[in-house]
Amino acid sequence: MLEDNLNKDPSDALKAAFRRHASGVAVITATAQDGSPVGFTATSMTSLGSNPPLVTFNVSRGSSAWPTISNTTHLALHMLGAGNYGLAQKMAEDRTKRFLDSDWEFSEFGLPVFKDVTAVLFVKVREFHHVEQNAVFIGDVVSGKLGAEDKALLYNQRAYFTPADTAL
Amino acid sequence: MLEDNLNKDPSDALKAAFRRHASGVAVITATAQDGSPVGFTATSMTSLGSNPPLVTFNVSRGSSAWPTISNTTHLALHMLGAGNYGLAQKMAEDRTKRFLDSDWEFSEFGLPVFKDVTAVLFVKVREFHHVEQNAVFIGDVVSGKLGAEDKALLYNQRAYFTPADTAL
Repeated sequence: MLEDNLNKDPSDALKAAFRRHASGVAVITATAQDGSPVGFTATSMTSLGSNPPLVTFNVSRGSSAWPTISNTTHLALHMLGAGNYGLAQKMAEDRTKRFLDSDWEFSEFGLPVFKDVTAVLFVKVREFHHVEQNAVFIGDVVSGKLGAEDKALLYNQRAYFTPADTAL
Repeated sequence: MLEDNLNKDPSDALKAAFRRHASGVAVITATAQDGSPVGFTATSMTSLGSNPPLVTFNVSRGSSAWPTISNTTHLALHMLGAGNYGLAQKMAEDRTKRFLDSDWEFSEFGLPVFKDVTAVLFVKVREFHHVEQNAVFIGDVVSGKLGAEDKALLYNQRAYFTPADTAL
């Protein structure tokens, strides 16, 4: 049964509820105007219909990637598998260390692409819809590539998981 | 390594890539102007920052729930656990059978609330941002309730799962 235990502060209510929600893990990359690669881990990437093929994700306009992604025409959206656990952590930590390894290369549209992910989508920016200090990204899928199959990487209760071996 | 196998059709690229992405499962409900409960299963619900506490989800403007949710002031967003597997299926199938059981009741803001979920958030509608025949919902969390703890319900590869027993 539901308990009236989240009424005191709506911000705490959001955090407590979403801790119980699972989300897929993605890495989003772009190329800055000086040619350097930029990217970050995101847990809000989702589809916005397939005809036309549209994707969304949410981002803080205070994030280090914001100046780049809000001034580019294309982004690369990477789907992560269990084998990308380290990549997910790396792309959420010190931003000066995110592109030091040789696990990526410049690819379509001059975008930095991590090579061992389960899939990548190349997306044309349609708009960033501003909401408070955040933005909802809306973009058109242009093309994509599939990598090796792997269990999906997901985030739940402040930790990374894969789905259980068998479906319900 | 990535293969150039999704370039032919961007809609197919989106579908193939998102099949490999995991998503949390939610049920979203509202009350129609005639007082009847309306709801559906959603796999696109995500947080848009916690200060202020905002949530988003994506919806087709052709869906059966659209006339109701686009004309209401509040929605209830339910986080689902493994025990809500049947609820997730029911709320994605025949819409005339979604509220026949006694697993829900009218609650805050006159909203239909399913009682055995892991959490529910009461959300004030801020806007539906239209994109093609779809819409991105943006709303403010007003309050919430926690239910019993349960493993999160997630959707991946066209099936329902829970996270594995142990984190990575």
